[in-house]
Order: sequence, then structure tokens, then C-alpha cells
Amino acid sequence: MTKIKSLRVHDVRFPTAAAGDGSDAINRGDYSATYVELFTDGGPTGTGFTFTNGRGNEITCAAVEALAHHVVGRTPAEVRPRDLTADVQLRWLGPEKGVIHMAAGAILNAVWDLRAKLAGKPMWQFLAEMPTADLVACVDFRHIDDALTPGDAAAILDKGRVGLEDRLAQLRREGFPSYTTSVGWLGYPDDKVRALTRAAYAQGWRAMKMKVGGPIDDDVRRARIIRDEIGPDALLMMDANQVWGVDEAIANMARLAEMNPYWIEEPTHPDDVLGHARVQRAVAPIRVATGEVAANRVIFKQLLQAGAIRVMQIDACRVAGIPEVLAELLLAAKFGVPVCPHAGGVGLCELVQHLAIFDFLRVGTSLDGRMVEYVDHLHEHFEDPVRTRDGRYLVPEQPGYSSALKPASIAEFRFPDGPAWS
Amino acid sequence: MTKIKSLRVHDVRFPTAAAGDGSDAINRGDYSATYVELFTDGGPTGTGFTFTNGRGNEITCAAVEALAHHVVGRTPAEVRPRDLTADVQLRWLGPEKGVIHMAAGAILNAVWDLRAKLAGKPMWQFLAEMPTADLVACVDFRHIDDALTPGDAAAILDKGRVGLEDRLAQLRREGFPSYTTSVGWLGYPDDKVRALTRAAYAQGWRAMKMKVGGPIDDDVRRARIIRDEIGPDALLMMDANQVWGVDEAIANMARLAEMNPYWIEEPTHPDDVLGHARVQRAVAPIRVATGEVAANRVIFKQLLQAGAIRVMQIDACRVAGIPEVLAELLLAAKFGVPVCPHAGGVGLCELVQHLAIFDFLRVGTSLDGRMVEYVDHLHEHFEDPVRTRDGRYLVPEQPGYSSALKPASIAEFRFPDGPAWS
Repeated sequence: MTKIKSLRVHDVRFPTAAAGDGSDAINRGDYSATYVELFTDGGPTGTGFTFTNGRGNEITCAAVEALAHHVVGRTPAEVRPRDLTADVQLRWLGPEKGVIHMAAGAILNAVWDLRAKLAGKPMWQFLAEMPTADLVACVDFRHIDDALTPGDAAAILDKGRVGLEDRLAQLRREGFPSYTTSVGWLGYPDDKVRALTRAAYAQGWRAMKMKVGGPIDDDVRRARIIRDEIGPDALLMMDANQVWGVDEAIANMARLAEMNPYWIEEPTHPDDVLGHARVQRAVAPIRVATGEVAANRVIFKQLLQAGAIRVMQIDACRVAGIPEVLAELLLAAKFGVPVCPHAGGVGLCELVQHLAIFDFLRVGTSLDGRMVEYVDHLHEHFEDPVRTRDGRYLVPEQPGYSSALKPASIAEFRFPDGPAWS
Repeated sequence: MTKIKSLRVHDVRFPTAAAGDGSDAINRGDYSATYVELFTDGGPTGTGFTFTNGRGNEITCAAVEALAHHVVGRTPAEVRPRDLTADVQLRWLGPEKGVIHMAAGAILNAVWDLRAKLAGKPMWQFLAEMPTADLVACVDFRHIDDALTPGDAAAILDKGRVGLEDRLAQLRREGFPSYTTSVGWLGYPDDKVRALTRAAYAQGWRAMKMKVGGPIDDDVRRARIIRDEIGPDALLMMDANQVWGVDEAIANMARLAEMNPYWIEEPTHPDDVLGHARVQRAVAPIRVATGEVAANRVIFKQLLQAGAIRVMQIDACRVAGIPEVLAELLLAAKFGVPVCPHAGGVGLCELVQHLAIFDFLRVGTSLDGRMVEYVDHLHEHFEDPVRTRDGRYLVPEQPGYSSALKPASIAEFRFPDGPAWS
């Protein structure tokens, strides 16, 4: 029985703000990781993280320290996620949202990485081969059982066993569909957008996402450039990063509809379930997509109940790790909404490929409307980086969650004492 | 022009957990304050805080440090709340929720305390006498303007001028209605509940709140004790502190309805707008009340749009200070829902009395269904503590937000180095 002997957290920051990479209507920062290592006696080291945007990464690190006693001294299987998410003192700082929840996610991601490594399997396989009862036991059904019961979850997961081997063979042949966000950050001038779009199309991408939420005339002009480059058949997604009000989102999408967007992502405030529902009704058949900053499974439950989204974008780091993501995948399957994970940042591509593959193998069981975001940043810092071919993710094969940073990268980019910052 | 020269934050914790005070279905902690002082050159010191539940208070303190640069070097009037709530790097940690938002609240409460002190007025008066245009300019309408426009806000505030002097005279004669929560914490045995209820009734209280959310048979038994003591006419409120699922809340309230509760508070997860709406439809005419952990004005907007609450419980410390509370009071007035502020903890009674009085004078303009929570804890640590008479708050008259802790209390209870903790 391998016990978690100690926890160490690193404040790792990459200086991305200066380049305009990752700039959108509302965020601009230095992509950072609150990076957790769980040490064992002689066993593997579990690694996990939550992604942040630079300043404030020290706050999530402090929150990790405050939660560490819930895992140190236990075996991975003994860790109870609710100890972290419903701590009688710390939950006041959420509950189940923001800093404290992201810190729980960093820790629980590391715990599940350790479990997968101990099993000698990549995360997608570790989850896909887990007995239904064990998967159901991972899920905290409190506050979602009006939409998803343990019985519902078991039925979905049992059904997911049928044809699993065929789906895996298909993935190994073809890879997992993805789209690229690297062409249209708000910080890029028009000619750079055109050049990047042309290059991405040449590389095989047939789905691309642009940022909107600047002055609407600029958004329209940039959207025309991209649509002009990719032709009528490739998919163009738009992402407003929450900047619009509800009425404003509806009005702006009426103008952008000319470029036939596949989805509008984060049209308004992420907490506004009713607002998203209004936008979805107004902009259909354009899909509303959201989720990268949805605080927890209770928000996703409502987005689904209200018919507010037609694409659900889970995040690997904002919620309480694998167990809560599992709840979210099951909710999406129950409501028949496709999951297209949010990626980019630091290491999000590395993590969500496992979630998307598991979803296809055992939960959603379809590739229809499924795509994983792909952003070509910072992969070189990971021990087991994503691999893509012709705009598709290849199946990762190393044990664990692909979450380990290279020691040299940690040393170089540790804040504030790493050479990159001093 | 008084400039904010520097900011200091104190981690102050009171060891309340051991006594069972403040114990409910989901929280038990050491009542704490992330306490902010804003120093000026020769002018008064602004004080503000956010309330936490013990462990983790160091995290909100770290978040205050990360936001401090948005106020230091500015005059109070130059502080722009959105600089704190939409910081391009820090907002990723929310947005507008949890640790980072509570820290913004602590700072902005201190900024507004400083403004009121510079004007030489208690906060309620400073706000009540402010020109409509200035009040409207304080509000961030982004993401709520589908429910409340600047024009709506101005109309409410202009109308609130009519009869203001009469309402103030009434308050000075009679005080502001309140209710007590000190009789029925979950940590108390039955005989203590009975004795406290009897004592409170003898002191003049005609509205009392008990905690529910334990085993339902225990909740029913304790409710019978209290109803038995207070007779059929006094108000009995119940507070489940978020512990129930939606269906569970409906089922349990069917049993507790026998004791004729006035409201059920926090019946389920605070993010669950649709869940609260279902509960409200099922338990009517019992009122659903919530808000002490509603993350921001966008959650309140939806609770009102969905008809999910009939009592709105604002909190002075969870959201981004006076400006966001102002938005919430205006939303409640627009939808015609009475505001009954959450209090207790550390210093929440001291703060919310100002908000309730301002609401009566200038926004809601009625006492119908309005009550401020009262908990008799920790007032002795404040320079300008609340004063009550016959279950009513008396109008505070000192300049500022009544938010200043006594220096001796800060020194005694500072964590971890104060004598109370070492």
C-alpha cells in the first residue's frame, strides 16, 4: 500500500504576456501552473496542477498548502475528495469555486496521476478499464442528484463497455479530432491572423477558433479574413471570453452570423445560466459553448437543464480533479450534449486528451461534434507532451496523466527565484 | 485630496469552534477577519474586512496583497472597483467569486469606510445623501444590464428621496427590526435550545432562526421545541446551510412545514439558481431565502429573474464591497423582493446595519418583511459596536462603516503570533 509521504507545491510561471499569445477580450497574462508533487516511499511521484494566468499563482499555491493535510499520510485510494471540497473551515472561501476549488483540483489531479502510474496505465486507460461501481463511487452526487443519479451513471458506464475495443482501435488509427486556437488572438494584427490561418489550413486544420469581444467592427473584419482563408466548409468558432452582456451578445452575434460560426464560446458571464439560455435561443442554429471557467458540476448541471449550451467545454484544472470531471462527463452524456474540452494554457492539452479519449471510450461513445482544443504553446516543458498529426491528437501511451513538467523547466521558470524571472 | 499611502492586512482569528457557536450543517470554524487598514497622510485610516471561517484566512490575506496596488497611491474617489474585479491576470482565479472576490470586498469596504470618514458621516448617511448620478456611477452594470439598466437604477434612487426624512425619523424612534440566530445552532443540545429560546423571547425577540440539516427527525424535534416556546405568532426561520439536494429539500420541508416556518434559508447549493426556483415553487407559501454565499450580483440577478427567492440575503463581505452591494440592493428593489442581510460572524452586524438602513431610506423604502440578522458574538472587539433595544438595531452615528477593530483585539487575536493562539 503506497502512502503519500509528503506534498510539495511549485509556483511556475512562463512569461507569455509580452508576446500577445493568449490575449483575449478579458484576460492577458503569464501562463502559470500551481504545480503539485506527491512523494511516496519508493513508489512513483504523483504530479498535478491547476492553471493560472500569472499574478495570483502564489494564492492558489497557498490554498494547496492549506488543503495538503487531507492527502498526506494516506494511500491514493484513501483520499476522499469531499474532505477537500467540503472542509468545514475552508469551504467558506468557495464553496466549490475559485481559488480553493482550483487548489483542490491541483491536488486531486496529482492523486489520480499517482493512481494511474501505480496501475501502470495512461489515465484514459486507467479510467476506461475501471469497474462501473468504482467509477460511480468516485462521483459526489450531492447537489446534482436531481439531474443525475448513481443509477443513471451506472447505466451510462455499463453501456459504454459495448464496442469499447472498436472505438479504441479507431482512435489508434485516426487520432482524436481537434481544432486550433492559435490563429486569432486579439493581440494579433490582421496580417498575422491571415498568415497564421493560411498556415494552419495548409497543415491540415479544418476547424479554427478566433477571439471576439473587441470593437464589433474589428471582430467582423477579422472573422471575414479567416472565413475568406478557410473557405465555406471548414469550421470557424468564435470566443468572446465573457465580455458581453446578454443583450449585447445577441446583437453582436446577429452581425457575426454572416461568417457562419460553428459556435459562440463564453458569450457572457460564466455564472449566468439564464443568460446563456437566452443567448442560445436567440442565436440558434449557432451553438453556445461554455465551461472553461464554469465553477463546478452544479453550474454545468444547470446549463444542461436549461438547454443553455449545445457544446460543453470541460476544464481539467478548474474543478476538483478527475472525480468532478467524471461527474461532468456523465451529466453531458445524460443530456446528450457533446463535450469539447478546453485546452491551451500550460499543459491543458496534455491533460484533456485523456479526458476526451475516456469520454469517447466509455461515456459519450461518439465523435460526433467532439473536438479537443489545441494550442501550440509550452508543450516542450512536459515530460510526455501531446503529439498531433493532421490536426488530430494521437493516443498517449505513457502511464499517468501526462502532467509532469521537466525538472529543468521547473527550475528555470519557478517564481520569483528562477533564472527566467530574476 | 487625501491619498491612500499604504495598505496593511491582518490575519485575525477568534477561537470560536470549540464552543459550538456558529455550528451548522456544513460549517464549523474559528470566526476570522481578513482585516485591511488603509493609511493616509494625516487623514483618517480606512478599515474594512472580509469574514472567513478560520483556516484559509491566510489565503484571503495573500489575495489582498495581490490586489493592493490597485488602491495604493490613489485617492479614494480614484479607486475603480473594476480594476480589482477584472484584473487581467487575477480574474482567472474567480472570476468575481471566492477568495479573490472576497479580498476585493475587504479592500473596497475599507476604501468606502475612508470615504465616509472623510465626509464625517456614518456609511448609511454618506450613501443616503449621495446624488443619484454618483450612486449610479458606482455600479458595474456589466452582466446585469439585461435586468437593471442605469436608467432603472436612477429612477429607483430618485424615487427614494421622497419621504426619506420621515423614514429616518421613524428609524431613530423605533430602530431597525431584527431577528436572532443565537438560539438554535446545531451544536447545542435540546435543553440549551429551549433555555436560549425562552430567554430570547423574554428579551423581546419575536423572530428567531434555527439551524436544520441534521437528521430530519432531530430537526423536527428541535423545531417543535422552539415553536412550543415562542407560540404561534412569533416568526420561526430555518437555515439548512446548503446541505440538502433539491429533492431532499422539498421532502424535508414537507415535514418541517408543520412548525409554520417563515422562511427556509440556503435549502441547497448556493450556485443552484434553478434548484432554488424548484424549491420555491414546491414550498410556497414558505419563503426561500438565500445570499450569504451568493458569489456576486450575477447570481442574485438570476435568483430574482427565476423567481427563486422571496427573501434576498445580501452579505457585506463576500462581494466586491459597497459598490456591488449597491447593485444588489437595486436589483432587489427592481424585482420587489425584500432584503434581509446576513449577519453574525465577525463584525457582519456592524456592517450590514448601515446597508439595511440605507436600503430603507433610499432604495427599498419599506420595512415590510425586512429584518437584519442578529448574533450576539464578538461585538466587544469593535470600536463602534452595534447597539440593540427590544430586538431592534439602533441607528449608528459615528463616521464610517463601524468596521474598526480595537487595536488590543487585533494584537490579542492575530494569527499565528497573537497571545490567544500561542
